Amino acid sequence: MIKEAIFHRPKNNFAYAYDDNTLHIVLKAKKDDMKSVELVFGDPYEWKNEQWQTNTRNMKKSGSTSLHDYWSTEVKPQFHRTRYAFRCTDNVETCFYTERGIFSDPPSEISNYFCFPYLNKADVFNAPSWVKDTIWYQIFPERFANGDPSNDPKGTLPWGEVKPTPTNFFGGDFQGVMDHLDHLVNLGINGIYFTPIFKAHSNHKYDTIDYMEIDPQFGDKETFRRLVKACHKRGIRVMLDAVFNHSGYYFPPFQDVLENQEKSRYKKWFHLWDFPVKTNPAPNYDTFGFVSSMPKLNTENPEVKQYLLDVGRYWIEEFDIDGWRLDVANEVDHAFWREFRKVVKSVKPDAYILGEIWHDAMPWLLGDQFDAVMNYPFTNGAIDFFAKQEMKASTFANSITEVLHMYPANVNEVAFNLLDSHDTPRILTLADGNVDRVRLLYLFQLTFIGTPCIYYGDEIGMAGGQDPGCRACMIWEEDGQNHDLFQFVKALIALRKSHPVYANGGSFRFLDVDDAKNTIVFEKYNKSNHVIVAVNNSPKQVTGSFGLSGKFDERIFSGNVFKKSPIEIGESPIKLGPYKFRIFEKVGKKMNG
Amino acid sequence: MIKEAIFHRPKNNFAYAYDDNTLHIVLKAKKDDMKSVELVFGDPYEWKNEQWQTNTRNMKKSGSTSLHDYWSTEVKPQFHRTRYAFRCTDNVETCFYTERGIFSDPPSEISNYFCFPYLNKADVFNAPSWVKDTIWYQIFPERFANGDPSNDPKGTLPWGEVKPTPTNFFGGDFQGVMDHLDHLVNLGINGIYFTPIFKAHSNHKYDTIDYMEIDPQFGDKETFRRLVKACHKRGIRVMLDAVFNHSGYYFPPFQDVLENQEKSRYKKWFHLWDFPVKTNPAPNYDTFGFVSSMPKLNTENPEVKQYLLDVGRYWIEEFDIDGWRLDVANEVDHAFWREFRKVVKSVKPDAYILGEIWHDAMPWLLGDQFDAVMNYPFTNGAIDFFAKQEMKASTFANSITEVLHMYPANVNEVAFNLLDSHDTPRILTLADGNVDRVRLLYLFQLTFIGTPCIYYGDEIGMAGGQDPGCRACMIWEEDGQNHDLFQFVKALIALRKSHPVYANGGSFRFLDVDDAKNTIVFEKYNKSNHVIVAVNNSPKQVTGSFGLSGKFDERIFSGNVFKKSPIEIGESPIKLGPYKFRIFEKVGKKMNG
Repeated sequence: MIKEAIFHRPKNNFAYAYDDNTLHIVLKAKKDDMKSVELVFGDPYEWKNEQWQTNTRNMKKSGSTSLHDYWSTEVKPQFHRTRYAFRCTDNVETCFYTERGIFSDPPSEISNYFCFPYLNKADVFNAPSWVKDTIWYQIFPERFANGDPSNDPKGTLPWGEVKPTPTNFFGGDFQGVMDHLDHLVNLGINGIYFTPIFKAHSNHKYDTIDYMEIDPQFGDKETFRRLVKACHKRGIRVMLDAVFNHSGYYFPPFQDVLENQEKSRYKKWFHLWDFPVKTNPAPNYDTFGFVSSMPKLNTENPEVKQYLLDVGRYWIEEFDIDGWRLDVANEVDHAFWREFRKVVKSVKPDAYILGEIWHDAMPWLLGDQFDAVMNYPFTNGAIDFFAKQEMKASTFANSITEVLHMYPANVNEVAFNLLDSHDTPRILTLADGNVDRVRLLYLFQLTFIGTPCIYYGDEIGMAGGQDPGCRACMIWEEDGQNHDLFQFVKALIALRKSHPVYANGGSFRFLDVDDAKNTIVFEKYNKSNHVIVAVNNSPKQVTGSFGLSGKFDERIFSGNVFKKSPIEIGESPIKLGPYKFRIFEKVGKKMNG
Repeated sequence: MIKEAIFHRPKNNFAYAYDDNTLHIVLKAKKDDMKSVELVFGDPYEWKNEQWQTNTRNMKKSGSTSLHDYWSTEVKPQFHRTRYAFRCTDNVETCFYTERGIFSDPPSEISNYFCFPYLNKADVFNAPSWVKDTIWYQIFPERFANGDPSNDPKGTLPWGEVKPTPTNFFGGDFQGVMDHLDHLVNLGINGIYFTPIFKAHSNHKYDTIDYMEIDPQFGDKETFRRLVKACHKRGIRVMLDAVFNHSGYYFPPFQDVLENQEKSRYKKWFHLWDFPVKTNPAPNYDTFGFVSSMPKLNTENPEVKQYLLDVGRYWIEEFDIDGWRLDVANEVDHAFWREFRKVVKSVKPDAYILGEIWHDAMPWLLGDQFDAVMNYPFTNGAIDFFAKQEMKASTFANSITEVLHMYPANVNEVAFNLLDSHDTPRILTLADGNVDRVRLLYLFQLTFIGTPCIYYGDEIGMAGGQDPGCRACMIWEEDGQNHDLFQFVKALIALRKSHPVYANGGSFRFLDVDDAKNTIVFEKYNKSNHVIVAVNNSPKQVTGSFGLSGKFDERIFSGNVFKKSPIEIGESPIKLGPYKFRIFEKVGKKMNG
């Protein structure tokens, strides 16, 4: 037994409250090292005849990476508290892994055991319940639709007739979004994430000038109010993008600093190193990256804090928005986000708070800060495997298993699973224009745990490289759209929405991964449903049994829906065309193992 | 290389802000597996010629346990942010350990690297600076001294003439403490931790009736105000004990519930399962343990929260106390403690918040909740090794190394290092009455990282078993006191206070551990001082070189102080008598490695 590789520590993804009564407990061990792992647990205060009373539960292998196995179980302690250890058995020995190390016998000292001292409701990670049933659609407002030419900025170009540049304008606006809500309803999405809409000079509006004003090129507050209402009428939630880490160059307090220098009443709103403040040749103040036009806001200053908290409150109270996406969220202090959460939840308890964090974000996802982060670890794996064809099947499976085990299950269910965005090339471009590979991306995204997000235009087959290429005008001409792709995505969304096992009502696990064939087989399952998806990620037809046999309903995309068709898988192998997949359902069957 | 055993994850003891400019970064690996570990790190935004700019730093082995080595270093990133990986080398290969796994070459994708996105001051763990220079003294007020017979409870017994029982009273009070402050000043302590003083029926007062009132057997608010002032005049801080997890049975809101049941306006102050609320045969409400007279308070209820936060504020604002020790702190919700910290620090920014947590308390020590916890992992190791003689030297060294690596260094510096308390047998009793072993306990405690606490009476050699035995009346008769022990402890305190290397101004590491001889040699060191302590934890004289050679100043306890005496350690071995120790100083010498 490689004892050095055994790992557990409570109050993160390894031990957490899944809900008000349930604890999930996970152990990491060297891959294929343990024959079995059991959780030995008990109430810290339950003694009989001077003996501590413990129970035992078999743990299940919930996933494996190249190095590790994850062993998982859940317990519902009657008195909301527990102490526990892991009884690990390999072919040679059995040992007890505890907070105080590894013992050959169960430790008699209760203080050696791991402790989850109390499952207090106030500490349960508690994202809004609607989020896990949401399919997002990301809109870059300048490029979605121009519905009102009267608010076009000077120099607005004819829609889609030239390529996007970092500085040109096409006049996209709120009226344009309202004019095309039917497209979104038709597709089946029920949440819109808008990149910034506040007053700013650029076309992307990440250079905020006034967090309390709509940029006039999009409309005014009344238009925005109408937009939110129109969305809500159609069951679509609205999330705005907030840049609280730094302001834009023309943010009046920063301009005041540049003008009045040491006498500015805003000098403590930023992190100034010395005076005079200068932007050239290099800024002498904290910035986002090294960009002098993006001065970092001092979110520890009570005035700044109050201003930004007021922003967070205002757009919910006045316009009834449903969520905030927080730009560069990882560089702002945790203390600020804790206050932000309190303010936001006090005005709308079921508002969604989504942080832009590209790396391991566990410290922000403990229940006191964010409901979710943008799930780039998911994105990276999916893009490298399906789109770029640069990743081995086993590496992909390892990375996805890692994604699922790096956070608690209730965090994963509301993770923001994007495939691309205004910051990356579009998926069709990443997939070298191969629509079949784009379909596999959507297949995987829309059957996975979390809340998927579709970047505007991807669903009709728009291409586009790195910014500014990915920010082209939405194509509304019918003959410029890929209708087959649209119907396919729409059908996947419909399947996900009508069958919980395809969404967050099903657990995920890889069944079979073949590097030589470049195939993966994964399953989604719950108590009454069991779905198996076989994917050929190679340009060649492959055949195999993929470990399947017996009677299934196959889900076949036909006539723009996923229809059921009975199939018996026996001795003859299954065929999978180049970049094709097959979905098999075992309805009413409990899964084994 | 056992890659499965390599572990790191940011924002806990493995990567944290030590101060406003410094990050500490720690890697865990299989013991003796790596030849070297280097930190490869850079600013996330620093690029030259499309190449990310990184630096390299050698990491040092800061400690080893039976299974693992800990490799540590510190960095001061100019722009307060960093991404990093670990270059691990054994005898066969070199590999790069990153957030996304282990690679044989440095990953070109910066997103693979670990991330400490921003060192924001607001998030730095920031305990009051006075704490790390504090030596605590724990007083159980009913048993320290009876200074005012007029407030004695009915049935008070003559001081120390009978054994303590769970229910008897001896009349200890605030006046008694004031009368004996000279004893404490003489010993050298500069902080008193009082077990509860609020109105309660029992002699221990953990069964709070009124959190806003002093129990009259100790005096009144004026007496308490005088006591705090008298302490402050002598440079002694005062910490009170708060039981916020549960109330006492006679807490009026709980009595109201028992009386008015479903109609009680306090029914939401507790976690009641159903009505009628009953205490027998088993409580039908949440309790501490299964004790029906200790109903758990509903700290999520805004009224309860406000009441307890007012308590936290009141005793600081009105009486200028310096800290709160929080009973059963691990069972109260984190959300409450975050608010508690805000309130306490708003009225006294340098107040100390100490939680009673017996297990791994990392989730409470991230800067947003507690300044410290009671360091029972330290206690257990020290008691089992020195007092009970039940632990091998190597097991002790492993456990202490683990204690030092389970929390950030700035957390360790303010850890509350107790040897015993009102909840355990006294150290002399644990040491079978062997004063030499008690001396070794004090030697270790008073030269270790953290803030030591002395339980009243231990310093004069009081014995006593598990509660109630450990709660006997303080012995004030000169001939009942062990003056040698008192002088020894006093001298150790003086040494610690006058030489930072003995206290928190020195790093700690084991140099030599010998299970056969039952000896340990440890070092404390900083840039200009180097102290080596050799301890014989066995009943036999031992000899050995303990890896020492050259010129030293030996610190010899003589004439009630630790005097310097030059010594050259050469070829002849060092002698250590039964349960004896020797201290060697290498002044002005930088340590190696």
